[in-house]
Amino acid sequence: MKAVQVVGYHTTLQLTDIPEPTVEGPLDVIVRIGGAGVCRTDLHILEGQWEEKSGVALPYTIGHENAGWVHAVGDAVTNVAVGDKVILHPLITCGLCRACRFGDDVHCENSTFPGIDVNGGYAEYLRTTARSVVRIDDSLEPADVAALADAGLTAYHAVAKAAKTTRPGDVCVVIGAGGLGHIGIQVLKAISGVTVVVLDRNPAAVELAVKIGADHGIVADGTHIQQVLDLTGGHGAEAVVDFVGEGGATREGIAMLRRAGNYYVVGYGENIDVPTIDVISTEINFIGNLVGSYNDLQELMTLAAQGKVTLHTTRYRLEDFQQALDDLDAGRVRGRAILVP
Amino acid sequence: MKAVQVVGYHTTLQLTDIPEPTVEGPLDVIVRIGGAGVCRTDLHILEGQWEEKSGVALPYTIGHENAGWVHAVGDAVTNVAVGDKVILHPLITCGLCRACRFGDDVHCENSTFPGIDVNGGYAEYLRTTARSVVRIDDSLEPADVAALADAGLTAYHAVAKAAKTTRPGDVCVVIGAGGLGHIGIQVLKAISGVTVVVLDRNPAAVELAVKIGADHGIVADGTHIQQVLDLTGGHGAEAVVDFVGEGGATREGIAMLRRAGNYYVVGYGENIDVPTIDVISTEINFIGNLVGSYNDLQELMTLAAQGKVTLHTTRYRLEDFQQALDDLDAGRVRGRAILVP
Amino acid sequence: MKAVQVVGYHTTLQLTDIPEPTVEGPLDVIVRIGGAGVCRTDLHILEGQWEEKSGVALPYTIGHENAGWVHAVGDAVTNVAVGDKVILHPLITCGLCRACRFGDDVHCENSTFPGIDVNGGYAEYLRTTARSVVRIDDSLEPADVAALADAGLTAYHAVAKAAKTTRPGDVCVVIGAGGLGHIGIQVLKAISGVTVVVLDRNPAAVELAVKIGADHGIVADGTHIQQVLDLTGGHGAEAVVDFVGEGGATREGIAMLRRAGNYYVVGYGENIDVPTIDVISTEINFIGNLVGSYNDLQELMTLAAQGKVTLHTTRYRLEDFQQALDDLDAGRVRGRAILVP
Amino acid sequence: MKAVQVVGYHTTLQLTDIPEPTVEGPLDVIVRIGGAGVCRTDLHILEGQWEEKSGVALPYTIGHENAGWVHAVGDAVTNVAVGDKVILHPLITCGLCRACRFGDDVHCENSTFPGIDVNGGYAEYLRTTARSVVRIDDSLEPADVAALADAGLTAYHAVAKAAKTTRPGDVCVVIGAGGLGHIGIQVLKAISGVTVVVLDRNPAAVELAVKIGADHGIVADGTHIQQVLDLTGGHGAEAVVDFVGEGGATREGIAMLRRAGNYYVVGYGENIDVPTIDVISTEINFIGNLVGSYNDLQELMTLAAQGKVTLHTTRYRLEDFQQALDDLDAGRVRGRAILVP
Repeated sequence: MKAVQVVGYHTTLQLTDIPEPTVEGPLDVIVRIGGAGVCRTDLHILEGQWEEKSGVALPYTIGHENAGWVHAVGDAVTNVAVGDKVILHPLITCGLCRACRFGDDVHCENSTFPGIDVNGGYAEYLRTTARSVVRIDDSLEPADVAALADAGLTAYHAVAKAAKTTRPGDVCVVIGAGGLGHIGIQVLKAISGVTVVVLDRNPAAVELAVKIGADHGIVADGTHIQQVLDLTGGHGAEAVVDFVGEGGATREGIAMLRRAGNYYVVGYGENIDVPTIDVISTEINFIGNLVGSYNDLQELMTLAAQGKVTLHTTRYRLEDFQQALDDLDAGRVRGRAILVP
Repeated sequence: MKAVQVVGYHTTLQLTDIPEPTVEGPLDVIVRIGGAGVCRTDLHILEGQWEEKSGVALPYTIGHENAGWVHAVGDAVTNVAVGDKVILHPLITCGLCRACRFGDDVHCENSTFPGIDVNGGYAEYLRTTARSVVRIDDSLEPADVAALADAGLTAYHAVAKAAKTTRPGDVCVVIGAGGLGHIGIQVLKAISGVTVVVLDRNPAAVELAVKIGADHGIVADGTHIQQVLDLTGGHGAEAVVDFVGEGGATREGIAMLRRAGNYYVVGYGENIDVPTIDVISTEINFIGNLVGSYNDLQELMTLAAQGKVTLHTTRYRLEDFQQALDDLDAGRVRGRAILVP
Repeated sequence: MKAVQVVGYHTTLQLTDIPEPTVEGPLDVIVRIGGAGVCRTDLHILEGQWEEKSGVALPYTIGHENAGWVHAVGDAVTNVAVGDKVILHPLITCGLCRACRFGDDVHCENSTFPGIDVNGGYAEYLRTTARSVVRIDDSLEPADVAALADAGLTAYHAVAKAAKTTRPGDVCVVIGAGGLGHIGIQVLKAISGVTVVVLDRNPAAVELAVKIGADHGIVADGTHIQQVLDLTGGHGAEAVVDFVGEGGATREGIAMLRRAGNYYVVGYGENIDVPTIDVISTEINFIGNLVGSYNDLQELMTLAAQGKVTLHTTRYRLEDFQQALDDLDAGRVRGRAILVP
Repeated sequence: MKAVQVVGYHTTLQLTDIPEPTVEGPLDVIVRIGGAGVCRTDLHILEGQWEEKSGVALPYTIGHENAGWVHAVGDAVTNVAVGDKVILHPLITCGLCRACRFGDDVHCENSTFPGIDVNGGYAEYLRTTARSVVRIDDSLEPADVAALADAGLTAYHAVAKAAKTTRPGDVCVVIGAGGLGHIGIQVLKAISGVTVVVLDRNPAAVELAVKIGADHGIVADGTHIQQVLDLTGGHGAEAVVDFVGEGGATREGIAMLRRAGNYYVVGYGENIDVPTIDVISTEINFIGNLVGSYNDLQELMTLAAQGKVTLHTTRYRLEDFQQALDDLDAGRVRGRAILVP
């Protein structure tokens, strides 16, 4: 089958022909890829940023945001059947460790990560397991939702926490109106009664954010901290969800946070660098957020099927992977680039 | 009446004679002081560290850890009567703002803080309100419990949160086996099923911590991070309660924290300075902790009455305040110094 | 001033002239009534159903769903000023008992209930306290929101609990599409991602419920249990909110509940009569619901100001109270009858 | 191997020789039984009470409280190895349904129940899966802990919920000081700060309950409701855990419950029959409780290894199964009867 592989760092991906994956274990599921999201992380992999962390042996197939159709299943698979439309949870998890057994499969002690440390989805077929396939509604197309598998799931996971710890009428500031921010805003409006205030440096992004549901949009022009304080009676917001995490976002975000508020860290890059006396005197919390769980992904797919969460995508043929990567790198992709084999 | 007052910064306190406080408002309560804790914060006040923050007009009476007997009450007071033994919540709160109405009175939008920004308890009498007096069991003596009003309440508040977010058998590391740490350890053992691991640089403090209930004591000698990892199968602890917050405690504490673990910030001094990528890739949380609520103080007094939380104290006559402060400054006080008028 | 009073049971209310209430305590607030809801409970009071329970001395002024303008305040009132538009929490609470201090003021140990056991709002003025007045947005009119003070607040309180214990995509069955049901449906859609299935015997009520947001409407015609099971893959709903509580509603509602589901009891009349073996083998819960807290009422007023919760009302002059009661008794009121002085 | 089987209802069990179970699926685990608890449910099975519910084909091996050593494992088993000491979660669960993935494996949609609907543990060997085996500490013996697998786990699960919803100093009434009650009391004292009040008709059981940690023991002699009210200032208890569920226990238990309190249903037999008006006017909740999850069992085993939960047992040889059942039926077993192959 066709597959796009990492053959070395600091060099380009290569389209090659490799054997189709087959069912090896009783819980294995082979998925025919319908869409694979092209993510900035893919660029970082080629730059070698993940080389040491993943320890993956080259060559291997890249691509960690995948959806498609079930092509084959192992003997013990009971939750999907051949032909089912599915989206793939990004991790393959064991189901036996204590974290998995709490539903916190993201912290599985024995997970692998297709596209990062085993073969991923820039290909015609991919092998995962029964524990990682979420059936999606007939009304959804794999290529349309593939990018929700990782980026969207991360946004869902973070804002679902914010929804649980706020009350109707509370204010939630969303820092960053990019891809994750747009998903986050739509989810917040769909599952909570918070007032959503979105911040971004890009006026067009703010405008779009308001169009998809944000209650207030603020262009980060230097007066934005004060604008948030003004909107909140001088108190600050009960929750800040930071999809940026660099360029001073954390310092600014903390300044917008109300006493006893929660700061959700999603984007990354810079350090949180805050005096402990400020943390205790205002009694604020910092909440880390990784990708969501399998059950989170089920819920996000329900919202997608209900039309409450949508994502703009641009499709490329699998063979045009280089074009997709180049467009992403140059900022020419509107929404999310999706490879379709 | 006799009162010990701040008459200027960078100078000593003065014992003086001022009028007894009287009932002015319908919810006022005048308390005859039975014991006033001598706290390191009192030293900091004299050094001027609180001058700007509190904005208090001099002279005023110092002392923010107070217990005693109800001496007089306003017309609208229904919860205590003259003669009742009481401990004083450190804040005077409004009961009308949204925070008060959630039971989160620590974040009252209209609070005052006796001993910090209004007259405190180094005196024969103190004025507070019905909202701040907690009746204590007959078996308890004001001078024995006074220091639980602030230091103890802070420790209680933090570890009660840790107890709620852990499961029986989880590991909770307590950094710092001083006054707050000792209260925290006793409370954790009384209200939760966590395994308590205590860390301190002082071997005698560690030994005492184990005697009062800690399951494991580790002297912070350079191998302590590894010792915690060894105790937890290499995973780290589900919770770290940091009563130190300086000298590198936060960096070390984070290294002992399990994925998805909670870091409770109580002590302060240094910055939390942590890469956002570490926060999200391990999905850890930082939880700020101020003093506890009125209801927290009721619960701590219940534990005290049950003998589950005790505090070593050294009593001084009110007139000997200077000796108490000098002893505290010189590290000569075992447990907590208490002034008794 | 004019007031409508209970002068005896099993007889009509009387319009009379009584002295205006005045500020007696420091936290008292006198409200000029802008609207008083006419509730079925008012009919029950006249029938003597509350005689023993309330122990109120006759004559007294009836009316427990009130909103208006602040007319006078006591010395210690800081949260409202003369002229403020307010809605009244139905209870007058102490703010000092442990329940009040947890924000659970509905279980205040020292509360009174205007319109039930002290003078209520079928009058030009009413006395309450600072603890019971919630400022409302300029865009809201007292007569439009008065009925949210009790009936609406009860619905809000119950469905807010359901929202907290469900996940996006879960199914919540609402039994009863009357006044409370309509508020409940609007709130559920505003603050959660649950799929709302509404049941009622009245096809017109079901139709209206769907118009205001319910995802599915089912006319209770004998096949409705099966219809709910069909909608939920045979499993039943994660939550059932029962605004009826009589005529077999509880038996039917339990049959629609999923394993580990929550049954919210709001309406009353019949007994819950369920074998303990069914409770344990399916591990279901029954959750009682009284009226909401003060903070709940604040949140409901925020939703009302945002236009997310609306209530159809029919206004009557205060003098026409008998007409309003007669219309209510005869089922001639569309939405809620409101007396306007 | 030797196995004790149900060969018909209303007749005795038979000791017979059947083939040893073997590994059939990749996650299968064969356990050499070290102890099998003899439970009242086993008597009910023989009486035919489970015939229709379980639909099991006869003959089959009875016994649902099992512990032992791992004897063989399938290819995909990673969490235990041959020779490990284990206790068995009573259910075999799929790990793929939404309930399993939330850690709520008790509500697995595809579970089997060894000893009830497939072969159980009155035998030398039993087949289960990797998802159901909990490794136990070296210090514990299978025969000593086997009875914690079901009865103990049920008690743990219920009181752990009560611990989460109470605060230190709250009162928890335990109705029934039998086997489950004794486990429940020990767990409550180990993991929470509640004051435990135990009720039983049998003075010896009450005495023993106090010896193992209950703070107050009350013999149910007709004045017990009043005694609980007296102990709680007339308010009732914040939580009632009912291990009896028959003979009027629920009616009495409700009378002991505080406003806004939680009633944990564990024992069964009679109906909960309570007016909805009482449920809403006091805002009480009824919480159903089935057996605990796999993770609950891990936690209970941790408490057992720490010596915080112990169980009195009487051992019988497997061949003496009839004697064990006869002794149980006649009330001659002290603690729990355990069959040891």
